[in-house]
Amino acid sequence: MGKKEKLKIIPLGGLGEIGKNMTVIEYKNDIIVIDCGLMFPEEEMLGIDIVIPDITYLLKNKDKFHAIVLTHGHEDHIGALPYILKQINVPVYGTRLTLGLVENKLKEHGLLKDVDLKCIKAKDVIRNGEMSVEFIKTSHSIADSVALAIHTPAGTVVHTGDFKVDFTPIDGDVIDLARFAELGKEGVLLMMADSTNVERPGYTMSERTVGQTFQNIFKQAKGRIIVATFASNIHRVQQIINEADDYGKKVAISGRSMVNVVDVAYELGYLNIPEGVLIDIDDIDKYSNSEIVIITTGSQGEAMSALVRMSTSEHKKVNIIPGDMVVISASPIPGNEKLVSRVINQLFKKGADVIYEDLADVHVSGHACQEELKLIHTLVKPEFFLPVHGEFRHLKQHGQLAQKLGMNEENIFLMENGAVLELSHKNAKITGSVTAGQVLVDGLGVGDVGNIVLRDRKHLSQDGILTVVVTISKETGGVIAGPDIISRGFVYVRESEDLMEQAKEIVKEALVKCEERQVTDWATIKNNIKDSLRSYLYEKTKRKPMILPIIMEI
Amino acid sequence: MGKKEKLKIIPLGGLGEIGKNMTVIEYKNDIIVIDCGLMFPEEEMLGIDIVIPDITYLLKNKDKFHAIVLTHGHEDHIGALPYILKQINVPVYGTRLTLGLVENKLKEHGLLKDVDLKCIKAKDVIRNGEMSVEFIKTSHSIADSVALAIHTPAGTVVHTGDFKVDFTPIDGDVIDLARFAELGKEGVLLMMADSTNVERPGYTMSERTVGQTFQNIFKQAKGRIIVATFASNIHRVQQIINEADDYGKKVAISGRSMVNVVDVAYELGYLNIPEGVLIDIDDIDKYSNSEIVIITTGSQGEAMSALVRMSTSEHKKVNIIPGDMVVISASPIPGNEKLVSRVINQLFKKGADVIYEDLADVHVSGHACQEELKLIHTLVKPEFFLPVHGEFRHLKQHGQLAQKLGMNEENIFLMENGAVLELSHKNAKITGSVTAGQVLVDGLGVGDVGNIVLRDRKHLSQDGILTVVVTISKETGGVIAGPDIISRGFVYVRESEDLMEQAKEIVKEALVKCEERQVTDWATIKNNIKDSLRSYLYEKTKRKPMILPIIMEI
Repeated sequence: MGKKEKLKIIPLGGLGEIGKNMTVIEYKNDIIVIDCGLMFPEEEMLGIDIVIPDITYLLKNKDKFHAIVLTHGHEDHIGALPYILKQINVPVYGTRLTLGLVENKLKEHGLLKDVDLKCIKAKDVIRNGEMSVEFIKTSHSIADSVALAIHTPAGTVVHTGDFKVDFTPIDGDVIDLARFAELGKEGVLLMMADSTNVERPGYTMSERTVGQTFQNIFKQAKGRIIVATFASNIHRVQQIINEADDYGKKVAISGRSMVNVVDVAYELGYLNIPEGVLIDIDDIDKYSNSEIVIITTGSQGEAMSALVRMSTSEHKKVNIIPGDMVVISASPIPGNEKLVSRVINQLFKKGADVIYEDLADVHVSGHACQEELKLIHTLVKPEFFLPVHGEFRHLKQHGQLAQKLGMNEENIFLMENGAVLELSHKNAKITGSVTAGQVLVDGLGVGDVGNIVLRDRKHLSQDGILTVVVTISKETGGVIAGPDIISRGFVYVRESEDLMEQAKEIVKEALVKCEERQVTDWATIKNNIKDSLRSYLYEKTKRKPMILPIIMEI
Repeated sequence: MGKKEKLKIIPLGGLGEIGKNMTVIEYKNDIIVIDCGLMFPEEEMLGIDIVIPDITYLLKNKDKFHAIVLTHGHEDHIGALPYILKQINVPVYGTRLTLGLVENKLKEHGLLKDVDLKCIKAKDVIRNGEMSVEFIKTSHSIADSVALAIHTPAGTVVHTGDFKVDFTPIDGDVIDLARFAELGKEGVLLMMADSTNVERPGYTMSERTVGQTFQNIFKQAKGRIIVATFASNIHRVQQIINEADDYGKKVAISGRSMVNVVDVAYELGYLNIPEGVLIDIDDIDKYSNSEIVIITTGSQGEAMSALVRMSTSEHKKVNIIPGDMVVISASPIPGNEKLVSRVINQLFKKGADVIYEDLADVHVSGHACQEELKLIHTLVKPEFFLPVHGEFRHLKQHGQLAQKLGMNEENIFLMENGAVLELSHKNAKITGSVTAGQVLVDGLGVGDVGNIVLRDRKHLSQDGILTVVVTISKETGGVIAGPDIISRGFVYVRESEDLMEQAKEIVKEALVKCEERQVTDWATIKNNIKDSLRSYLYEKTKRKPMILPIIMEI
């Protein structure tokens, strides 16, 4: 082993936000990146499809960058991979299910044959320069999730990934607490740990408890049972299939991502579906309603999801009928509360019985609550602590939790994306920062929509636009045709003819004034049109539409 | 008393939604309207300020319409008054505080001197034709709230208004359960009851419990204490003032609506502020931080609210500093979760301690939970039941609660706005429906923004707009100038010059083709421009901006 140098930890995403998780681990001439996730756009990012991390730092350090290791297959941990791999192609390490989901994604982007996917399993160790990465079994709301221990000459870094402590997991494979304890005994320099549920006291219940609720529901249901849940929650899907089998029911799958994930999970052996239980969604009418279970997407009330289409009679195969029992087996992700409420209302109106989190225990979280976090902190006993995977409030509370367990405040780092944490044996310090931020993806455009475009979309969305066109003579500067005014999203034109006629007069006056003052400079003419029209419209409507004057010269 | 006729109940708002509460009570030639509220716009109502009920039915029955009675002073019960009273001026009955808040509102709209405000108090009875309205003391998150008993020849209707059962209210004036019991004994034909919290088991805690939490906070705080709450929650404000006084602190008020409501409440005697406790916000720097309490708006994280401005250093008088203790004494209203989370993050980043509902009991609801609803149902024992004040899921659950208490399903009416419920002694039936719906208010425009305008705003917000202008010769039909293309909210133009140049070429080609085929009809030319440009842009960007072709003819 060579001279001990500083170990750098640089989060490029996932701090101060829940989403686009990505962390750089750098030692000497090697960089390993943990996870490569996307984030769904905030409400004000109008028209944006997804948000990915800014990888300027990796592009600058291309030569050092040798591997991406994935903790699990959720979008906020793997969703940016196609975009990043198009720019820098490095091997990607992950467990079997994780890579199965990644393959699907790469296929869609036409990248599958170009990428080196390296399948690992818990307890495996991979080497990269002087660093080695060890994978540790955890529990989460997706199967095959792992934590990481990264062994470096400067010390060991433990990254929990997203986790909970489930003593009775569906696959029987319990989180490897013993290994966390061992690492703690050997000495851990830094821990990075999931902060999502740090505000919740107590323990997250076992996934198995949801199965008990399902059992009661399946016992009572007289008509069809329709369960909406996260496509990636294979264990949830397994439990639904188990209950269906117990009660002699058939299971059909609906929703593109649900079909995809079930396919991958079944092929790889993560789903155990007894012979004859699964039927095609086209065949549900061949059975009586009491025999049918449908597993579907739409637990977040997403506009085009299968459940929403069922509730609005827009689904081609399934229409909600009285007697249907719909189970929404999920919590609304913050921001989706109203969408979920809307689909519940709609389902009730259609005559379905609806069971959701407020009424029964049909969901458990995938993240550790306070007591589980305390357990991990106590086992791992890190020298330094970097709370990750949370908004600032969560990072802050997680820091306070660590303090309550006896850690010194100066050993806890509340960081922002891009901050550089440098560690050596018994020493840690934030030494600077690198470029980090949000790259907006809109259709095929990656990063071509920025603040100006978003500001314009916001403006357009509030009061619409008025386009004013006027043709001016090149020779005389006089008006030859127009002004014409066309509006969109401003007022209902048929009911506002007077207003629009008057607006034309206002523009004419502005043009006359320009002519009188012999103003020929287009920018000034345009500004005069804008200013006079803006004040007229605001006075009459208290609205401020975008005004777009266009001058044609002939 | 004349011949007994049918009593009609027609909700014009508040059913299938939380907001714009308004109910028509009609007997023979008399109409009384209960409440006149607004609703805040849904996310997809881009640019809309507020939503009010459609009162077509009242305009048609102007001659019968004699009075509006208000249950309390919240916006969703009084907010539409200025808009409705501009169209039909009838006397408005309400308690003193409710009318105080209404006066403020009418003043802003220049209507105060025109409206006949009639002040009533609990136990008062007003007559209107053969109907009389009795006011009954209740508890809610605003002072001076009442329920109604409407006595008609067809029977008595009880409307709970928004209520909770608080046995230890701040003003000492307990909900008049005895009167509910008496009415129940005399016989109640129909009850309309608040469904907001029907999904929550147990009891809503007393407002007084929040005072105990405040006491702990005030005891610990070493710096300034900043409490954000709903301006209308006078009892909450009173408790903060009480604690401030106990600990020898000074109170300053921030935020327009907080200043307004505190003024009105103090003037009318609903707030008891000991001499010397209240100070001007301009004077806070004259005291040490440990002496200062600020009561402010912004508990919902609203963009321009005082608390948000404090957290982003945009507030003129108050800037958050380390050591400040900020208490968010409210629950996020559904839809506001992300805004609230954002201000919490921002406050933590500024170094404040932040206390919110997830961490301490700093808020209680103003609405009855299941056990309180059962109490009211059991006391009032109505013949028929119409759950109100809730989304459909709440109305449905409230109906089920009534059934569990022994009511027959056919005596429970799950209605939509506009449905007409006709009642006579021992008989009730939905007999039809009247016009009801949403009227959108945008600036000065009431109802001039409809679906087409909203659809355009939505389209503009997603991918922006491209305006294509071309000048054509009247004589030859040939192109004289252009095409010019100007885009807004589509792409960042400087980075997309090639795309825009190519787009121009596409339009030119389309124009040439039109000329070749001797197409002179503008609509066809415009459609050709749109179609060719749309497919080109979609292929290149996977975006679908609005395309607005404009042809100038000279």
